[in-house]
Amino acid sequence: MVVPSELEVAMESLMFTFHKFAGDKNYLTKEDLHRLMDSQFGEFLRNQNDPMAVDKIMKDLDQCRDNKVNFHSFFSLIAGLSIACNDYYTKHMKPKKH
Amino acid sequence: MVVPSELEVAMESLMFTFHKFAGDKNYLTKEDLHRLMDSQFGEFLRNQNDPMAVDKIMKDLDQCRDNKVNFHSFFSLIAGLSIACNDYYTKHMKPKKH
Repeated sequence: MVVPSELEVAMESLMFTFHKFAGDKNYLTKEDLHRLMDSQFGEFLRNQNDPMAVDKIMKDLDQCRDNKVNFHSFFSLIAGLSIACNDYYTKHMKPKKH
Repeated sequence: MVVPSELEVAMESLMFTFHKFAGDKNYLTKEDLHRLMDSQFGEFLRNQNDPMAVDKIMKDLDQCRDNKVNFHSFFSLIAGLSIACNDYYTKHMKPKKH
């Protein structure tokens, strides 16, 4: 039996979480994105202290203004958040070589 | 205590796996990438049936030819693989609405 690696498990989790909120569709509406953000990034949202935060994120992701966020656009949101977290981690948390 | 969400756990796993192979550095060398691919995408690599597969991936990721793959470039690899997996999943596996 092939045991999935950490990266495979993480990628699978990203994919299935997207589909959990997309339902039968292959995209997220603004309402789906709201539910996903509340459920998955509740603390991040609270820290934004901006009731329009999800609307702004939706505007960034919904480039063709059809109220649909496909998996590719969703992944750019994950990339942006991950790169920001990594920047913070490497500057403030990662042990430095002496 | 705040319990991390599925997406937060997945994003953290992507970040720490990158740093596991980067070591003290904040980038992967070609050798690091080889070890990461072998360990994390062994089956994917075997299916490529191409001993130069990692070298080609490295060439794609190492845009400035300095033998360094930073987190941003690494994430584009993860994005490419995830989007390919999602395309396959939506076409061949996701239950269709009747």
